[in-house]
Amino acid sequence: MEDLLTQTNYALDTFYFLVMGALVMFMAPGFAMLEAGLVRSKNTAEILLKNVALFGIACIMYLVCGYYIMYVGAVEGGVIPDLGFWIGAENTVEDTLASGGDTYYSARSDYFFQVVFVATAMSIVSGAVAERMKLWAFLGFAVVMTGLIYPLQGMWTWGGGWIAEAGYSDFAGSGIVHMCGAAAALAGVLLLGPRKGKYNANGTVNAIPGANLPLATLGMFILWFGWFGFNGGSELKTSNIIEANAVAQVFVNTNIAACGGVVAALLTARMLFGKADLTMALNGALAGLVAITADPLSPIAQYAMLIGAAGGVLVVFSIVTLDKLRIDDPVGAISVHGVVGIWGIVAVVFNNADATIGGQLIGILGIFGWVFGASLIVWTILKFTMGIRVSEEEEYEGVDIAECGLEAYPEFVNAN
Amino acid sequence: MEDLLTQTNYALDTFYFLVMGALVMFMAPGFAMLEAGLVRSKNTAEILLKNVALFGIACIMYLVCGYYIMYVGAVEGGVIPDLGFWIGAENTVEDTLASGGDTYYSARSDYFFQVVFVATAMSIVSGAVAERMKLWAFLGFAVVMTGLIYPLQGMWTWGGGWIAEAGYSDFAGSGIVHMCGAAAALAGVLLLGPRKGKYNANGTVNAIPGANLPLATLGMFILWFGWFGFNGGSELKTSNIIEANAVAQVFVNTNIAACGGVVAALLTARMLFGKADLTMALNGALAGLVAITADPLSPIAQYAMLIGAAGGVLVVFSIVTLDKLRIDDPVGAISVHGVVGIWGIVAVVFNNADATIGGQLIGILGIFGWVFGASLIVWTILKFTMGIRVSEEEEYEGVDIAECGLEAYPEFVNAN
Amino acid sequence: MEDLLTQTNYALDTFYFLVMGALVMFMAPGFAMLEAGLVRSKNTAEILLKNVALFGIACIMYLVCGYYIMYVGAVEGGVIPDLGFWIGAENTVEDTLASGGDTYYSARSDYFFQVVFVATAMSIVSGAVAERMKLWAFLGFAVVMTGLIYPLQGMWTWGGGWIAEAGYSDFAGSGIVHMCGAAAALAGVLLLGPRKGKYNANGTVNAIPGANLPLATLGMFILWFGWFGFNGGSELKTSNIIEANAVAQVFVNTNIAACGGVVAALLTARMLFGKADLTMALNGALAGLVAITADPLSPIAQYAMLIGAAGGVLVVFSIVTLDKLRIDDPVGAISVHGVVGIWGIVAVVFNNADATIGGQLIGILGIFGWVFGASLIVWTILKFTMGIRVSEEEEYEGVDIAECGLEAYPEFVNAN
Repeated sequence: MEDLLTQTNYALDTFYFLVMGALVMFMAPGFAMLEAGLVRSKNTAEILLKNVALFGIACIMYLVCGYYIMYVGAVEGGVIPDLGFWIGAENTVEDTLASGGDTYYSARSDYFFQVVFVATAMSIVSGAVAERMKLWAFLGFAVVMTGLIYPLQGMWTWGGGWIAEAGYSDFAGSGIVHMCGAAAALAGVLLLGPRKGKYNANGTVNAIPGANLPLATLGMFILWFGWFGFNGGSELKTSNIIEANAVAQVFVNTNIAACGGVVAALLTARMLFGKADLTMALNGALAGLVAITADPLSPIAQYAMLIGAAGGVLVVFSIVTLDKLRIDDPVGAISVHGVVGIWGIVAVVFNNADATIGGQLIGILGIFGWVFGASLIVWTILKFTMGIRVSEEEEYEGVDIAECGLEAYPEFVNAN
Repeated sequence: MEDLLTQTNYALDTFYFLVMGALVMFMAPGFAMLEAGLVRSKNTAEILLKNVALFGIACIMYLVCGYYIMYVGAVEGGVIPDLGFWIGAENTVEDTLASGGDTYYSARSDYFFQVVFVATAMSIVSGAVAERMKLWAFLGFAVVMTGLIYPLQGMWTWGGGWIAEAGYSDFAGSGIVHMCGAAAALAGVLLLGPRKGKYNANGTVNAIPGANLPLATLGMFILWFGWFGFNGGSELKTSNIIEANAVAQVFVNTNIAACGGVVAALLTARMLFGKADLTMALNGALAGLVAITADPLSPIAQYAMLIGAAGGVLVVFSIVTLDKLRIDDPVGAISVHGVVGIWGIVAVVFNNADATIGGQLIGILGIFGWVFGASLIVWTILKFTMGIRVSEEEEYEGVDIAECGLEAYPEFVNAN
Repeated sequence: MEDLLTQTNYALDTFYFLVMGALVMFMAPGFAMLEAGLVRSKNTAEILLKNVALFGIACIMYLVCGYYIMYVGAVEGGVIPDLGFWIGAENTVEDTLASGGDTYYSARSDYFFQVVFVATAMSIVSGAVAERMKLWAFLGFAVVMTGLIYPLQGMWTWGGGWIAEAGYSDFAGSGIVHMCGAAAALAGVLLLGPRKGKYNANGTVNAIPGANLPLATLGMFILWFGWFGFNGGSELKTSNIIEANAVAQVFVNTNIAACGGVVAALLTARMLFGKADLTMALNGALAGLVAITADPLSPIAQYAMLIGAAGGVLVVFSIVTLDKLRIDDPVGAISVHGVVGIWGIVAVVFNNADATIGGQLIGILGIFGWVFGASLIVWTILKFTMGIRVSEEEEYEGVDIAECGLEAYPEFVNAN
């Protein structure tokens, strides 16, 4: 009888994990629509293709070696990865029942949940390098990022490696997923340079408006929806009262942090620019979500709202600042996921007594250092082999024709 | 052992509630896309922003005081609200196990589920006042609506107050959510007046077509999908055979009522207008969903289909009639949620022996009277302080530039 | 106590089934957006309406008689259907507990899960006949398809009829749903003929680009997301370790097969056409999904990836070949669901020892023969009564105005 109940709980936890994972997978169209809405129409088909292809590449690379590096071969306190293949064996009934509760969900559901996180990290990159990066160079980077760069820092943290040992606390990945993606993106953007026409010689900045804001809004809402899986699933278990309450708290905090981010970014933009800027409201929501991701469990809802609101304020100033620094990020990905990701990591210490500012800083430096450094090397190799930037003419004409041989909206567009 | 099973059931019911709540949250982009698709392109960014911002405001206000008014401080049979803050404490393991089954899901999951309903009610308003209402006046109204107007009638009904005592029966909120939103919208529309160019002096009506019908269709389908959470979650429990069967019945009836609405509205429009009007089919689906929401549990599927079909017929005639009355509702929200909402409330008595026509009428009058009256006062105050209508020039140019400082589709549009 | 746990498991399995079913229902907007994105703007509103209306019709017809034919009245090994109405009774608590585990989820949840499959099959048809088929003829076909043609072959297979007896193995419906839809589509396309201007007298083919590729990409991703329900729910049970592991395996394989399809189709298109064709990548993902649907449980993930990849290669060649044969399928539905569906059915024998190539061929021939033949008869009757093709002038002007009396994008379009 007790074994039967153990089986039921295993099934419930596995089902919960799979549903949460499916929600995270759904973040893929969230990123795709957000980015497609925020670029110009002439570069839309290519960014869509990048988002579709990177998801395919991410899941394949994580199956082939990434999951092995991050979890299967991970060693407590380890630094150097154990290189190997495939995702290990499924739990047997016997072993599960004999585990005394240590094994409580399907090993396959764990791979499924983890793999959609990898794709999320990689999706962050595509937005920042939009409108000027070569398609195949980007996909080449995706192979290394999802097969090695992401998994290695994942092994250092969630895999129990040296950053975890140093006390770093990151519930669902403000650093491990979001800042990680932003660090890779930043390295690419620095090597790639800004889009033609973005920055003037006299220091002013030209706004390059996105072609389709309903799409961008849809993308933001899909991401919000998917984030319930992203954070909610990261509790990893739900089959008793304590765990169920924890998952509920995570849902509440995730939602209210996004709300705080929306309202704060909207008011900040209103004060700075005099208008209620829709794109800032969208980035505010995402900033709220990124900020709470490092710890959506410990704060009460009121504090979660404030953590999200701080993220919403921060993202507006960060976007303005990056433009002053001539770091051209068409969708604001580096600000949303990187700058606000760091805020989220730091904010853990306010509500979670187990976290220390030292441990958090080690995590930030360790993850950022590795991902930024390794990405810089990979982007540089790509730059000097196949090239990473499209030609000036291709950039002017739009990368859709050059790379994909078709247009996203062949009947609609009047002008470039 | 029994306590362990109680824990599992608590976890299952909480998880069910959270998944259903996430589906309802996803109705936010449903409303956003529906409304963005049905307005003109020059007013699209602003309606998107309204939808994003109202969701943020709704969740914050409901956290701050709305949930308290509606549930925490609610008194059996009460009329006057207990004003207070925050959402109360989470259930402890001890109290839950000692409750003998009375406590069977996380208190946090209850807030999460309820809060997304508030946002739904508020989303209904944005569509009806589209293309001419000032952004900040709208957001100001959202603060009062989600912090007080909605929660008070919610306390009167689901909170156990005087309308509940009078025998009013409304399973998932045909009245408490949908007619409530429509009543607030109607008050706003009456004060606001129709869009310029909608009605001619000679009594004829100009169709103002929506700019993006794929978006509107997507929005409708997202709402349909989210409605499984809206109605399915309103059973509140699923962890035994009777409850599981009930949730399944609710899913079946919700789906088939929408289908009845689609087909009935399509045929009605074909007969009235000679064409298969897509927007009427969309409104027919939503009408079917609104109609069944007051009782998706009691009818067999065949009757649910008929209740939805009647909603689908009704919505077409209602939209035509409102236009004759010069009540300008760009997306048909008052017809879909208000007129059909009333039909749904009344239809409960056909299948649910516990409902009486008297109780249902008390509910309709009580909810409508309060929400319409209170909203009229708030809209009036807003009108005479900050103003609720944009200038004629702003309306002509489109509210996107005036309010948001950007365009939704900067590269696409030929003409206003 | 054991009865209580049985109740919990029943609730879990029913909830799992309902969630999976809701995901499948969400495939409806997936198909709608995919098809709306791949047709020209002048035919967009009509294809949206077809997708909305067919869903309504499918659910109603399946309620009225389809579910009865397929399951309620099905006889082991049967060929001739038992004609009858409605969907039978819900399980009682007593019968369920007395069933010794044979009854383990709500009968209503079974109808709900099955009905969304019917709509999926019908959705496949609308894409293939797009841009030239009369709306009401299409809807007339939908009535027969969802009320009789689909249910009868469903009774022969999942209902336990003669094809099941012959050993045919099709886990989630590569044949029963996807090839079935494609067979009905093919019959319609052959009678309908190609769109004007698609094929030149000299044998060359004109590309007719879709008007809105972000929509098409969104549609693909929604379908991918919904497919977790489609395949994941087809395990039918999840409440113990073995079943939970099985569902997890299905999720993993479904996802990785889609990834294999994306990458393979992208590389194939790159080699054949010299460009990274977005529409081929989208079709590659769907091909991977269709290919794995016949058995997403037996293969290890690596093989699932290869099965999907083979589907991705196949779909590119199939689309090119059908164009050479002048079979005009605007969205590639016959290739994706028909040709790759057959591949998926055959591929079952590689990993599932219970399947035989003979059994699979009987399934292919039985399903295809019946659905293609019956559809051909119905389309022919429609052709000679109400006509199935719009006039040349309507086709030139676009079917939106002719059939729906409105335009999908009234403000955007420059040219036809």
